[in-house]
Amino acid sequence: MKVIADLCIIPMGVGVSVSPQVALCERILAEAGLKTKLHAYGTNIEGEWDAVFAAIKRCHEELHHSGVPRISTTMRFGTRIDRDQNMEDKVRSVEEKLAEGSD
Amino acid sequence: MKVIADLCIIPMGVGVSVSPQVALCERILAEAGLKTKLHAYGTNIEGEWDAVFAAIKRCHEELHHSGVPRISTTMRFGTRIDRDQNMEDKVRSVEEKLAEGSD
Amino acid sequence: MKVIADLCIIPMGVGVSVSPQVALCERILAEAGLKTKLHAYGTNIEGEWDAVFAAIKRCHEELHHSGVPRISTTMRFGTRIDRDQNMEDKVRSVEEKLAEGSD
Amino acid sequence: MKVIADLCIIPMGVGVSVSPQVALCERILAEAGLKTKLHAYGTNIEGEWDAVFAAIKRCHEELHHSGVPRISTTMRFGTRIDRDQNMEDKVRSVEEKLAEGSD
Repeated sequence: MKVIADLCIIPMGVGVSVSPQVALCERILAEAGLKTKLHAYGTNIEGEWDAVFAAIKRCHEELHHSGVPRISTTMRFGTRIDRDQNMEDKVRSVEEKLAEGSD
Repeated sequence: MKVIADLCIIPMGVGVSVSPQVALCERILAEAGLKTKLHAYGTNIEGEWDAVFAAIKRCHEELHHSGVPRISTTMRFGTRIDRDQNMEDKVRSVEEKLAEGSD
Repeated sequence: MKVIADLCIIPMGVGVSVSPQVALCERILAEAGLKTKLHAYGTNIEGEWDAVFAAIKRCHEELHHSGVPRISTTMRFGTRIDRDQNMEDKVRSVEEKLAEGSD
Repeated sequence: MKVIADLCIIPMGVGVSVSPQVALCERILAEAGLKTKLHAYGTNIEGEWDAVFAAIKRCHEELHHSGVPRISTTMRFGTRIDRDQNMEDKVRSVEEKLAEGSD
């Protein structure tokens, strides 16, 4: 089962800047061979369900191992069986509607 | 690794009422032996990481199997290593602060 | 326009415990006359759109005023025009399906 | 008060494809003069608090007006008073950490 997800991991108890922890997670997701795209409030992820969630578990484990006492993560994730779709399809589908509407 | 989570599964392409699908997921979470508490915009879940995420995978699988073409789920989940905490502790901790403040 | 929402405010840069800040927000929501229900990973809120979002803005303002340098909030919120629904209806609707299923 | 947000609006009861509704919201956000960036599971938004939330209210209103019976939206939004930050800063901050780590 393929999943397209959006992940936002918030380390707590480490101060106001969290980019070192976000970068650590980006590396873990990349090492897991997942397709990812960082944006200003999270990371898009595409992959097989088990691979995606195993990588996210590793993010929590590694962050705690690095000294982060508490983590609160938010995630959106979608699956569909009506047709195959990837991250680029989702963006393109909206952009096409926008282009049509501007005629 | 223990996790406290909050899950909101939205079946798409099934019409405007989604309580049958939410009820199906409640049953799956209960069958998995997880501690859960339904609220007006999701379900609190407490359990071991692997058990929690295996049950959520099963929710997606069973919903698709029952005919739901597309699912978009949102989740919050938290882990901590500084101390043990359960769902009741989290609520009580806030309620105690509220009681103190009302003195 | 009525909205049913679920709010989770995460103050950052204040250490690992955040219940004092969550309690402050509970007070603000109550003072705004909103119907609320605290759970283990957020707070259900029901009210008119403008009242709900004005109260949430006040939560961010008051938290910053109290010294919180950074806040990351997640929210779900739903509106519908097909029929009137309150927070209790949403829970009851699922519980009825669960009761039927256990016959 | 400036806010950086991430918005994901899910129209319910309109079938399995929702890109027309997402495109409508993109137009509303652009017309409101907000800085936005579409990604595969939502839209980053940057602007003044009141302008951002007024535009999101208009998204719900216009979608209902166009016939969508029910909408469930998820949002992340962050404010900070320790320093000024925009959407590009947030991405760059993580990318710099990634570049350092790859030395």
